[in-house]
Amino acid sequence: MATPDEIRATLDAYRATFSANDREAWLDLFTADATVEDPIGSELQRGREAIGAFFDTSHSMADSIELRPARPVPVAGHEAAMPFTIVVEVGGSKMAIDAIDAMTFAEDGRITSQRAYWDMAAAHPLED
Amino acid sequence: MATPDEIRATLDAYRATFSANDREAWLDLFTADATVEDPIGSELQRGREAIGAFFDTSHSMADSIELRPARPVPVAGHEAAMPFTIVVEVGGSKMAIDAIDAMTFAEDGRITSQRAYWDMAAAHPLED
Repeated sequence: MATPDEIRATLDAYRATFSANDREAWLDLFTADATVEDPIGSELQRGREAIGAFFDTSHSMADSIELRPARPVPVAGHEAAMPFTIVVEVGGSKMAIDAIDAMTFAEDGRITSQRAYWDMAAAHPLED
Repeated sequence: MATPDEIRATLDAYRATFSANDREAWLDLFTADATVEDPIGSELQRGREAIGAFFDTSHSMADSIELRPARPVPVAGHEAAMPFTIVVEVGGSKMAIDAIDAMTFAEDGRITSQRAYWDMAAAHPLED
């Protein structure tokens, strides 16, 4: 089983590569048949092609998206919940959305599923 | 469907009644066939009697347990993830555990399931 440190390293890379718009490195963090439900209630995306399309759509909706760590990540067995802040820049102004991603992991530390808790209605001006 | 405000009110009551050791008020926040998996990986508790036994066991392991809010709670549809800090007092000293509860809710705002992300290995001295 992946250790808590390996799981947290995957999550650090998840935020860093997504923020850097490094599509292939971000997709490499998932297993081949991984699923993404982002946000919860939206259509489930399964596999590299579908998850890659989600990545593209997300990045097309803003000039930049930064995923900032918010507090320590609790790990329980092969699952973890990552609190973070989505910082979205559009037309020179930045908005913040408080989010949590609930994830499961494979033996090698890669992501097998992601479910994202966030709501655009709770977006607020960024406090830096 | 329960509104985000109703869901957040249930979660405020969840932390307050658990911290106050108000067993019956805490149990009233769950539906009759609700489930609790706390922490993730432990045996699933279903229904008021089993969840009440979990409450009793938790409180028997410390002189006091306080659940402190940590940051805004993201709500997605009828689900929410609550970041909080478990403050455990034993023999006059306090420890803190960073936790997240992933929960689902019924139409009336009561809890239908709870899954708790935390790990005793990540406990640390309380920073007040």
